Amino acid sequence: MQPEIRNILTSLPPALSGESFETIAGSDTVRIERIVSNGQATPEGEWYDQERDEWVIVLAGSAGLLFDGHQEPQRLAAGDHILIPAGCRHRVAWTDPDVSTVWLAVHFAAMPGTCGPC
Amino acid sequence: MQPEIRNILTSLPPALSGESFETIAGSDTVRIERIVSNGQATPEGEWYDQERDEWVIVLAGSAGLLFDGHQEPQRLAAGDHILIPAGCRHRVAWTDPDVSTVWLAVHFAAMPGTCGPC
Repeated sequence: MQPEIRNILTSLPPALSGESFETIAGSDTVRIERIVSNGQATPEGEWYDQERDEWVIVLAGSAGLLFDGHQEPQRLAAGDHILIPAGCRHRVAWTDPDVSTVWLAVHFAAMPGTCGPC
Repeated sequence: MQPEIRNILTSLPPALSGESFETIAGSDTVRIERIVSNGQATPEGEWYDQERDEWVIVLAGSAGLLFDGHQEPQRLAAGDHILIPAGCRHRVAWTDPDVSTVWLAVHFAAMPGTCGPC
């Protein structure tokens, strides 16, 4: 049997069903995840503070990513990617309210010595 | 300092410079790689036979992926992704000759028990 081809930009969940998180591949050391946002943001005052490194790319739509200690979110659109080191507090300030924003995230153990605030 | 945003679809190497392989993030257990092809294919009769699992997505362009024992390559276009288990012999039968094909590949240790021919 051949490995199955799937498309990350199709079979999107209905916008009204909220933000969607789906693990699409991985192992015990890495997790590859599709996130679909429809205007959602991290709740005000809350931050992601992760134990693992996260590499993330926006494949469709757009979003604003805010890092702790900074005033303005950075805008990500299709093709934009960023490595968020473990311990680097961040929040999603906004996602496009009009179209689905499709993120691909790869979570993996932090490299020794790279963990810490950004 | 904030993590830096880069774009995976820009700063493509010149088509004439051949196929390009660039590690863009990773650790000792995972490697995230951008591959840019311009019509290249795996040399006739050669196969990839990898010790690690590889999850791969085509972000631009198109390509044909052939698995050992099968007659016809499977076509991948933008957004199409596939998990190639370790030990699953495969080759790139073709890539788009007219536009750059941008692949994102994530290489990681095979899950115990999943290694083997496909």
